[in-house]
Amino acid sequence: MNKLNRIFTPGPVPIDEHILSIGAQQPPYNRTGDFSLLTHEILSSLKHLFQTDGEVALLTGSGTLTMEAAVLNFLTPYDKVLIVNGGTFGQRWCDLCRIHSIPFREIKLDAGADLDLDQLKNILGEEEVSAFLINAHETSTGQLYDIQAIGDIVHDACLLYIVDAISTICADPFQMDDWNVDVAILSSQKALALPPGLSFVAMSTNAIARLRKSKPKTLYMNLQDYLRNQERGQLPYTPAIGLLLQLHQRLMDIQQRTLPEIISQHRQRALDFRKSIIDLPLSILPERQSNAMTALLCDDLDAVQVVQGLRTNHAIEVAPSGGTLKHKLIRISHMGDQNSSDIDFIAASLAEIVMPKPVERII
Amino acid sequence: MNKLNRIFTPGPVPIDEHILSIGAQQPPYNRTGDFSLLTHEILSSLKHLFQTDGEVALLTGSGTLTMEAAVLNFLTPYDKVLIVNGGTFGQRWCDLCRIHSIPFREIKLDAGADLDLDQLKNILGEEEVSAFLINAHETSTGQLYDIQAIGDIVHDACLLYIVDAISTICADPFQMDDWNVDVAILSSQKALALPPGLSFVAMSTNAIARLRKSKPKTLYMNLQDYLRNQERGQLPYTPAIGLLLQLHQRLMDIQQRTLPEIISQHRQRALDFRKSIIDLPLSILPERQSNAMTALLCDDLDAVQVVQGLRTNHAIEVAPSGGTLKHKLIRISHMGDQNSSDIDFIAASLAEIVMPKPVERII
Repeated sequence: MNKLNRIFTPGPVPIDEHILSIGAQQPPYNRTGDFSLLTHEILSSLKHLFQTDGEVALLTGSGTLTMEAAVLNFLTPYDKVLIVNGGTFGQRWCDLCRIHSIPFREIKLDAGADLDLDQLKNILGEEEVSAFLINAHETSTGQLYDIQAIGDIVHDACLLYIVDAISTICADPFQMDDWNVDVAILSSQKALALPPGLSFVAMSTNAIARLRKSKPKTLYMNLQDYLRNQERGQLPYTPAIGLLLQLHQRLMDIQQRTLPEIISQHRQRALDFRKSIIDLPLSILPERQSNAMTALLCDDLDAVQVVQGLRTNHAIEVAPSGGTLKHKLIRISHMGDQNSSDIDFIAASLAEIVMPKPVERII
Repeated sequence: MNKLNRIFTPGPVPIDEHILSIGAQQPPYNRTGDFSLLTHEILSSLKHLFQTDGEVALLTGSGTLTMEAAVLNFLTPYDKVLIVNGGTFGQRWCDLCRIHSIPFREIKLDAGADLDLDQLKNILGEEEVSAFLINAHETSTGQLYDIQAIGDIVHDACLLYIVDAISTICADPFQMDDWNVDVAILSSQKALALPPGLSFVAMSTNAIARLRKSKPKTLYMNLQDYLRNQERGQLPYTPAIGLLLQLHQRLMDIQQRTLPEIISQHRQRALDFRKSIIDLPLSILPERQSNAMTALLCDDLDAVQVVQGLRTNHAIEVAPSGGTLKHKLIRISHMGDQNSSDIDFIAASLAEIVMPKPVERII
């Protein structure tokens, strides 16, 4: 793994040098007052990131761990769940509900299609539902749903509103409390721009009240245990301490630069990139885009070959796709430590791959 | 967290400088052939560490995650489990079985007491049992059970043998296949001497056959998904990539220095330390000790004050204890990057705390 390609993948993302350097520190012992202080500072900043007055549980594991934690702690076989399934991660909500015997109905959407709010209202009018699950940014297609507008409808219907916000927080506005979101999840390796390994479950005060009555069949994902331990700045099981040190610094950086500024930086990158590729034979897939990523249909080209060409000829990693999109879609991330020359570089490299110059004729 | 005390805690442990420095590397994109190669090399070395011809699943999370994974993937409510409960981690097996509705009987042992093998045979003679759960090294008391001798009995009784080997592998001999262990677990922050955040489930060929019929009610801990993805060098969910780079190097180091040499180094450290404190008013708690750690009863002193004294006067962290042992027991780790001067330092510091020199009389 000596040769390191430039990555434009939606996780892992390029990480600031001074955050990376913290990764070389010896992890301190965690059952101390100093560590409790660190944890309290992290938790306070995470609440700001989610824009909630509730609580955030801090888990060691991937985003899928916290998706499963949300299902286990907040849903039971007595619920009836409505799931928006617009791709790989919508499907993951369905898989989790199936595994844990939670009845659900899915609104299956075409790749990149937006959710029709009238259709949503109709479904809620005709069917008794207790909870609503969605991925704010369906990372497999680039579709960003309107979590605020959906929140109004979901709130009117008195549903528990659970949102996977993994690849949107820090890249797009996300106002958990104002948008009536009850449970939101996030992981470290997206727009938070840290190495993978940490993930978070944010809970509104309403969700916390519900949690107190919950009897989840899990030890490692029991969120009550996390909240109880976190009160004294501790975690129930040894966390990825090194990653917590990096998280602490990153959260301080975000607070200093301000969250709106971080979001508008992502927005600017996304706009600049999209402008620079406007003449290429590529088309935007999603109806409503996140600043985190651009998902491009390769028109007449094979997406697998575009990904391979960028890797071989330009030492660039972009994300391929799976399933029916495998040969059609590439995904280019705007998250992490990127500057304007990175955007010029990926745009120029992409142009060379999708519009190769004709070989000059030898006279 | 600027001031960093010297740590003699059984996780986190002091980490080699060149392993720490890898923590500052940018995590590469993981859906590549290069990364698959890295994963294959890691898995091959992990099998060597466990001494098994079976398979090892690689999870991002703490040791408790893999304890829960073992319970979820290998036990059902139709099992009857026998658990050795000699402390915090034996209790954790009981908690996991209770949460997942798995019938169990526990052999409750006093802190530091060994398992009586005749008693075990008697219990197995009088009770129908299908699986046996134990912590090879009960880290809360320092007791190291005789996993090999127990394995003979468990094997004769045709039980599934599940062993938490978290704080023994690399410090003490552990021969998974030869000792008839079916499932063994390990995490990164003990004698493997890495930062916390990764954990592993090793499965014998017998266990793998059983796993194929298993329908665990979990997505993140579904070990079949791990084995299926690992065949092509991939993992089902984004792993802690940075920690995997460190793991890869550490496993290469162990292979170069050889596993028996690493174990005998721990043994020598433990012997040296125990010899150097022989005159102190401290007594060894466990009947059978691991090389990983020394668990010391503080006789007439308050263990909490000893821990605090080492921290305040010598900038040393040792592990306190909980429950009824809180004021009695301290635990001093021999794991990680320690040399003879570290051992002299902790022994001398401990002597100063537990046998303070009388104040010289002012004439």
